Amino acid sequence: ELDSAADDFAQYLSAEFGLKQEHTERVKKMLKYTCSGGKMNRGVLAVTTAQLLAQSLSQQLSDAQQKRALVLGLCNEILQAYFLVADDIMDGSEMRRGQPCWYKVPEVQMDAVNDALILESVMYWLIKKYFGPSNTQHWQSMYLPIMDLFHLVSLKTQMGQMLDLVSQPQGSKNPAILKKFTMHTYKKIIIYKTAYYTFYLPVACGMHLMGFDSYAQLELAQSICVELGEKFQIQDDWLDAFGDPKKIGKDGTDIKDHKCTWLVVMALLRMSKEQRKTLEKCYGKGDKKSAKTVKKLYMDLGLKQEFEKQEQDSYDRVKALLNPALLPSAIFTVILDKIHLRDK
Amino acid sequence: ELDSAADDFAQYLSAEFGLKQEHTERVKKMLKYTCSGGKMNRGVLAVTTAQLLAQSLSQQLSDAQQKRALVLGLCNEILQAYFLVADDIMDGSEMRRGQPCWYKVPEVQMDAVNDALILESVMYWLIKKYFGPSNTQHWQSMYLPIMDLFHLVSLKTQMGQMLDLVSQPQGSKNPAILKKFTMHTYKKIIIYKTAYYTFYLPVACGMHLMGFDSYAQLELAQSICVELGEKFQIQDDWLDAFGDPKKIGKDGTDIKDHKCTWLVVMALLRMSKEQRKTLEKCYGKGDKKSAKTVKKLYMDLGLKQEFEKQEQDSYDRVKALLNPALLPSAIFTVILDKIHLRDK
Ligand SMILES: [Mg+2]
Ligand SMILES: [Mg+2]
Ligand SMILES: [Mg+2]
Ligand SMILES: [Mg+2]
Ligand SMILES: [Mg+2]
Ligand SMILES: [Mg+2]
Repeated sequence: ELDSAADDFAQYLSAEFGLKQEHTERVKKMLKYTCSGGKMNRGVLAVTTAQLLAQSLSQQLSDAQQKRALVLGLCNEILQAYFLVADDIMDGSEMRRGQPCWYKVPEVQMDAVNDALILESVMYWLIKKYFGPSNTQHWQSMYLPIMDLFHLVSLKTQMGQMLDLVSQPQGSKNPAILKKFTMHTYKKIIIYKTAYYTFYLPVACGMHLMGFDSYAQLELAQSICVELGEKFQIQDDWLDAFGDPKKIGKDGTDIKDHKCTWLVVMALLRMSKEQRKTLEKCYGKGDKKSAKTVKKLYMDLGLKQEFEKQEQDSYDRVKALLNPALLPSAIFTVILDKIHLRDK
Repeated sequence: ELDSAADDFAQYLSAEFGLKQEHTERVKKMLKYTCSGGKMNRGVLAVTTAQLLAQSLSQQLSDAQQKRALVLGLCNEILQAYFLVADDIMDGSEMRRGQPCWYKVPEVQMDAVNDALILESVMYWLIKKYFGPSNTQHWQSMYLPIMDLFHLVSLKTQMGQMLDLVSQPQGSKNPAILKKFTMHTYKKIIIYKTAYYTFYLPVACGMHLMGFDSYAQLELAQSICVELGEKFQIQDDWLDAFGDPKKIGKDGTDIKDHKCTWLVVMALLRMSKEQRKTLEKCYGKGDKKSAKTVKKLYMDLGLKQEFEKQEQDSYDRVKALLNPALLPSAIFTVILDKIHLRDK
């Protein structure tokens, strides 16, 4: 799907912009490098949602629906790529998905800023191609709502990035910053930075596609997806410290990077003055001993039990939000069952 | 207008996103820093176009029209700010509009990448606010065409940036790159990178607002605006080398920066092998003597006469394109008269 979309876009640039092959090839290479290699969870989720909604109507996806579900799934992946390219530049990261970050490729460097913008444009170009004026009225009626959805989720993610960046000024690992690590700030950051584009965007894409798009339906999906996103990110923080590196595919770096995680926020809420001194000394340090000390502190403070409670509570909260009269529960339980108690 | 839009947006972030004042203040500060201090040519042009089109119908702008013309003018300025913030990062520039580039502000740095994205979102937020579902049908009918216009002009500008960046790999001042400086490449770069958003976007905004938005009308505006943009950028290159620094407000740096300018492209087309050696030795060097040598070369090759011819030819070409039966000529002649033979 990515390959054929990249070819289509290159063809468009060549025909409408008169770009030479050298330049269209560069765009294709950039698209493939930045959009592939991930788990494609978001792209798959958009398609799964559409399929489950069709099933709830005792239907199957038509070819035209299937095609558009795939396109929207791809747009979800492109949106993510656009944020990851930008995020890696801002964080000064080295590796992404097992290869150097795009801006770390020698012939790219800061040109990657413009490439992030191009990724975004490709996304809107695809939406226009499959929902814009050249399509039947049925598809065109979704054009505006879908474009608004991508605009809004982009803005939310940008705000999450801003809150994240401001909560931890450029590279700063100053203990004074720990004061800013409150649960309120933490939740705002993860909800905006991750939850909207990870869960709400793909689910809402499937919903628009299948006509489950009333205000009440979208609002319900939003509250459930925010819960799911929060649960998912708290797990992410837990696994970074206590997961099996073989299963999650990387060594945790949150302690070293002085990240605002659920663990450190919970610890700050529960620790003694004594323990806080230890934390201030060890948090943000790169050596293994400091990381070990911090993890021991987390355990001493009973965060394992807290995390298990959080897993169960969040599971219950999602279950309580389901409203089958308004929206088929399957589109959410398929996510919940997949992530609940995950170890990778 | 900028101040009140920034206040509105901050208000929205506070009410809908629950952002704290600390964070909404940061967004406001960013908006004001990056969008003001320029000449506002593009913003003014959108309003002027709307006014001239109203006059052509023997009308005046209503308050509602006036307000929306100002909003679209502001969106033009925001789009420019978004590209300038990104461009300055990519070029590693120091100063912009007499103050440090936004990414050079100590507490900003690479967070500026996200701020460029936020600027873009503010633009679409404003368009939605004044043309989206909360407005009367008359304004809503313009929502999609205007959003498509901004998407398309963004994509064109991104492609111009890409062509520009690829034509001169990151910071490279290698004489071998001179081979890539052809008139074809030069024109593609300036048309995409500058002409569309500088002239076509504001003019097209005014046209959509006043209902001069048929395919034929927009196509005509596009071809004339591309001519105007080309003329404008060639003047820019000329003034960089031979303009009066007091009038243009800065010292030229194109020779030092090894830029692909109209002058160097024309020179390459006309010079002897001997002269080319001189150019290769001096182009891209920072010392005053090298710059002087290059400028003398330009003069020896008759580029002053060529530039004067270009001024007259481009003037005639724009005049020849005018088609008063389709579109009032005034919206273009007001630009042409302003830029023809400009010395600043
Ligand atoms: Mg990162
Ligand atoms: Mg980051
Ligand atoms: Mg993590
Ligand atoms: Mg620049
Ligand atoms: Mg540049
Ligand atoms: Mg210049």
